[in-house]
Amino acid sequence: MGEKDHSDRQLVGDGTLTFVPLAAIRRVRAEVTDRIARAEILADVCRVNTLYMIMNAGSGHIGSSFSSTDIITWLWTEELTEANSGAPNADTYFSSKGHDAPALYSLLIALDKLDFDLLHRLRRLGGLPGHPDVETPFIATNTGSLGMGISKAYGMARARRSTGRRGRIVVMTGDGELQEGQIWESLQPVANDGLGEITVIVDHNRYQSDSTVAAVSDLGPIEDKFRAFGWEVRRLDGHDLRALSKAFRELGAIGDRPKVIIADTIKGRGVSFMEGVARGDQTYHFHAGAPSLQHYVAATRELVARVNERLAALGLAPLTLADAPLPARIVPSHPERLVVAYGDELLQMARDRKEIVVLDADLLSDCGIEAFKTELPERFLECGIAEQHMVSAAGGLALEGMLPVVHSFACFLSTRANEQIYNNATEKTKIIYTATLAGVVPGGPGHSHQSVRDISAVGSIPGLTAIEPCSEREARLAIRWAVERNPASTYLRFVNVPLDLPYTMPPSYALEVGRGVSLRGGSDVALVGYGPVLMTNAWRAADDLAAGGISAAVIDLPWLNRIDDEWVRSVLGRFPLIVTLDNHYVTLGQGVMIAAALARTGVRADVLSLGLTDVPACGTNAEVLAHHGLDAASIARSCSARLSAERRPRTLA
Amino acid sequence: MGEKDHSDRQLVGDGTLTFVPLAAIRRVRAEVTDRIARAEILADVCRVNTLYMIMNAGSGHIGSSFSSTDIITWLWTEELTEANSGAPNADTYFSSKGHDAPALYSLLIALDKLDFDLLHRLRRLGGLPGHPDVETPFIATNTGSLGMGISKAYGMARARRSTGRRGRIVVMTGDGELQEGQIWESLQPVANDGLGEITVIVDHNRYQSDSTVAAVSDLGPIEDKFRAFGWEVRRLDGHDLRALSKAFRELGAIGDRPKVIIADTIKGRGVSFMEGVARGDQTYHFHAGAPSLQHYVAATRELVARVNERLAALGLAPLTLADAPLPARIVPSHPERLVVAYGDELLQMARDRKEIVVLDADLLSDCGIEAFKTELPERFLECGIAEQHMVSAAGGLALEGMLPVVHSFACFLSTRANEQIYNNATEKTKIIYTATLAGVVPGGPGHSHQSVRDISAVGSIPGLTAIEPCSEREARLAIRWAVERNPASTYLRFVNVPLDLPYTMPPSYALEVGRGVSLRGGSDVALVGYGPVLMTNAWRAADDLAAGGISAAVIDLPWLNRIDDEWVRSVLGRFPLIVTLDNHYVTLGQGVMIAAALARTGVRADVLSLGLTDVPACGTNAEVLAHHGLDAASIARSCSARLSAERRPRTLA
Repeated sequence: MGEKDHSDRQLVGDGTLTFVPLAAIRRVRAEVTDRIARAEILADVCRVNTLYMIMNAGSGHIGSSFSSTDIITWLWTEELTEANSGAPNADTYFSSKGHDAPALYSLLIALDKLDFDLLHRLRRLGGLPGHPDVETPFIATNTGSLGMGISKAYGMARARRSTGRRGRIVVMTGDGELQEGQIWESLQPVANDGLGEITVIVDHNRYQSDSTVAAVSDLGPIEDKFRAFGWEVRRLDGHDLRALSKAFRELGAIGDRPKVIIADTIKGRGVSFMEGVARGDQTYHFHAGAPSLQHYVAATRELVARVNERLAALGLAPLTLADAPLPARIVPSHPERLVVAYGDELLQMARDRKEIVVLDADLLSDCGIEAFKTELPERFLECGIAEQHMVSAAGGLALEGMLPVVHSFACFLSTRANEQIYNNATEKTKIIYTATLAGVVPGGPGHSHQSVRDISAVGSIPGLTAIEPCSEREARLAIRWAVERNPASTYLRFVNVPLDLPYTMPPSYALEVGRGVSLRGGSDVALVGYGPVLMTNAWRAADDLAAGGISAAVIDLPWLNRIDDEWVRSVLGRFPLIVTLDNHYVTLGQGVMIAAALARTGVRADVLSLGLTDVPACGTNAEVLAHHGLDAASIARSCSARLSAERRPRTLA
Repeated sequence: MGEKDHSDRQLVGDGTLTFVPLAAIRRVRAEVTDRIARAEILADVCRVNTLYMIMNAGSGHIGSSFSSTDIITWLWTEELTEANSGAPNADTYFSSKGHDAPALYSLLIALDKLDFDLLHRLRRLGGLPGHPDVETPFIATNTGSLGMGISKAYGMARARRSTGRRGRIVVMTGDGELQEGQIWESLQPVANDGLGEITVIVDHNRYQSDSTVAAVSDLGPIEDKFRAFGWEVRRLDGHDLRALSKAFRELGAIGDRPKVIIADTIKGRGVSFMEGVARGDQTYHFHAGAPSLQHYVAATRELVARVNERLAALGLAPLTLADAPLPARIVPSHPERLVVAYGDELLQMARDRKEIVVLDADLLSDCGIEAFKTELPERFLECGIAEQHMVSAAGGLALEGMLPVVHSFACFLSTRANEQIYNNATEKTKIIYTATLAGVVPGGPGHSHQSVRDISAVGSIPGLTAIEPCSEREARLAIRWAVERNPASTYLRFVNVPLDLPYTMPPSYALEVGRGVSLRGGSDVALVGYGPVLMTNAWRAADDLAAGGISAAVIDLPWLNRIDDEWVRSVLGRFPLIVTLDNHYVTLGQGVMIAAALARTGVRADVLSLGLTDVPACGTNAEVLAHHGLDAASIARSCSARLSAERRPRTLA
């Protein structure tokens, strides 16, 4: 589930990327006649192209893609019937973990099922989203948040039974994914209904985002668990296609109960130095980001060499390859990293405050708490991919007098554990929820990871104050306020994209509940919002507007669900136009609360609310912000248009 | 989890209730010297008082209370050390299922740990809440929503280990509760950390809300499951105190892993005709509501007779009993039952529309879908207490072309499956979510069941339109709109309290997205809201205001997250004062959206937003509405006060 933004990756110089063009792939498929050999070679060809896609995109999950490539290549070339074609009795395949999408895309492209040009458009607007989406042909369901796949398969199977259609449903899960409660919630109903058309394959590569599954939250005896839930179990080497073929043949004869294959795999399989060999608490280095150019080049060379050796052994010509330039990326020169500053401030306080305990759901490095774990391991609880458990565990810790600080991505923490956060709130204990990767960017992972409804999801929880800082300094102030000054619970929302900030906070700035701070003066329009993405784009929009003679103020209001009416009246009430900015849906974001405060305080100003109105798009950060009208140019354009309209006499029926 | 509102229960005549006074209980505790006999007799004494409390309150869970009474009596009298006392090394006990609270209250009162007067104040304001809350002495944690207990125990144990405190933690769960994924999410971490101080007791009474566990969602081999998750397992007769004693002795010697006791119990144990004996799909009739007066009297007689027989056998005098009158309840004469009307309309449409499939999470009768299940069992999917699984299964059904209609209580559906609803929304399929028991009343179950933040929790999900009808007619219109006219997904929010409605909808009324309907004309103030509780109280407030010369309009706006700006401007803009009413938190409820629309449309009116601002109180419906300022008198008072203030010159600094 880990997601890193690599827009700031240091390039080692001009790079050239390599991919296997369609003609070369078609030749392999046509010329290699042995089924096993063909799938093995095709799998490595797909790995070359998967790597290309991830390098081109700047991010993507190599390890999980490579551990599953052999399995899916075998499935799609030899086992499945008309897979995902929409035919009445077609088999269905999908990945519940979802972050192995690059491997599946690469394979679908190789099998002529997706347009080859999409190879160049991973994580781009209108291209292939970071996690699967049904808008892409041959993608059966949206995944990306873990644990939902078997339930979806259950629904599909029940629908087919009721309409008399057939077709098997094969679901891939991760092994770390088995930590999610929904997996176990779904297993028994599938067994109780005897849905023998469902086969689950566990990609048992022994690693999850942060480190090994055993170190994060050991799974215990997996086979016994599935058996106790009524499933037929097989275990095999997930890179041994003969074993896979045999297992599918055997399982095909069992029709009265669901089946699971525990496939022992190697994370990063296929590239010697990317292969993870589980040893205790060892971090795996190719989970989520694009590799360095050197690693990329070496990996591609190794894969191509092996393919060519195998082709040569069969008396076939080597692969034809094609090149593409490595896309240039803008590298911020002095980016602020709010999550890192937050983690540092928290650690400083924790040295003195023995009651502080940190909880994590397998997103250590994305939550700024690596140093905490290293220095204070006895007060660090790794909970694995088990957000509900983590949040209720925090409730138990708080009842015993500790101050739990709970971490995950905003998209998971605010929604997966939504009721658990509320339950804790009703106990009126004090807990800090730190939700990272908030907002619409990074835009690469796709909507499962773009948290743009968490203000709404947690904003009405009684006693829970939500804050999003817009700078490292405000991040430090926010965690200090949450620990030292807020007697109740706090939801800290963080953007993870490192950005060069055009603004600085006033030197005397201190947090005051419900009240914002002016980052830039102006008189014609107030641009109000929160967080570094909005404030940076608002600032640049103000530059654009200034060029057109419009004076725009930029105002940071870090309080997401606490609005001081008097501050709104006295500060915002001065502006003829107030533009609220939400890195969130407009419906039930901060903007609606500001507008309501204006109504309550009798301010008569024009209000324009910008933010999301539909499912977030996937793409580069610039593409996504522009698509949703939240980049500087769009903000400036919206302001200008509104001000022009205002100058015209208003016609009210 | 089932909750019924019995304020409309037909009384059979004047009734007298019976309880065992404290002196009589103390005498039993003092005079019976054999540990087993004392606990057995005390348990039946507690059952008498539990029944009294539930009859007095008008609701409460008899079956689950009685199945667990023997176990908790043994624990609290013989096993636990300084339980829940706050002493440094005290043992801790709590029930994760929570709805057995009356039994625990009755026991704590019998043990002199709670004030005896609280016996008369179950589900009353300032009394004993319907589900446990830490504000009550000796209650360790808030439960009521299922599945959180073992995670909380994990947090407590980890906190104690880090601070060097000892004390065992004993957690009671239901058997139906084991269907919740969080249970399985929590088991492995507890085992991985070797938390031998934690013992779970499964009250295995074989019934859940709707019928038997086996019929709803069979659990399979429970012992194997716990063992596969690393737990030490014992199984015993949960009414055999010698067996319990022996198990605790044996388990006490095991310190390196968590322990679970599967206690085979009988739901309703202790009263012959209330005892559930699991036979297929047989409904249990004493799950959630108060019994009839005849049943109450017979049950109390049986319990008292047995206690007295046992006392006599020991040569002791019979119990002294005390009487109290059965509280009179207001019975609505022609109440509207929106959920029933909804279910009927859905069934009518489903006869023709073969794509409609109904999903339920063990709350059949509370969701109006009993007739659907009876008539169209092949299109009814009972999912058990597994909301995440149910919602993702609905996603799978929708992807295969079905129209799933998903049912649970609003408090669980909107929060427990929050991310799953969002995931489905990103697939842009069409699903209907029917969320019942919404709002602050019935006030008896307590905050775990009072859904007052679901508008916020689901309101920003893209493409999801939320509606709350205020009458049977509007309920029928709403489900018909969701099925026939809305191309996307709908969240239908329903109040379950049967009410006599003072208003009728205009004959020509039809739903128009974002636009409301005037139920009563007026000119000084507009009372705007949704649902039968708010509209009924608004209407009566308008009566009160009319008596004071204030003309109040009552306007129903059933659209919870879609507001038509032009309608707001043209209809609400005419009123000098607009009072928004939320059966929900004010923060991120409908009122804030109406206020924002007023600001957007440039209306200059005074706006007052009424609704909840803190955790909902538990009590009778009248108590709770008054406490939160949402009964007719409070609404009228708020309006009058605001209008008086308005007449004074406004001082703006």
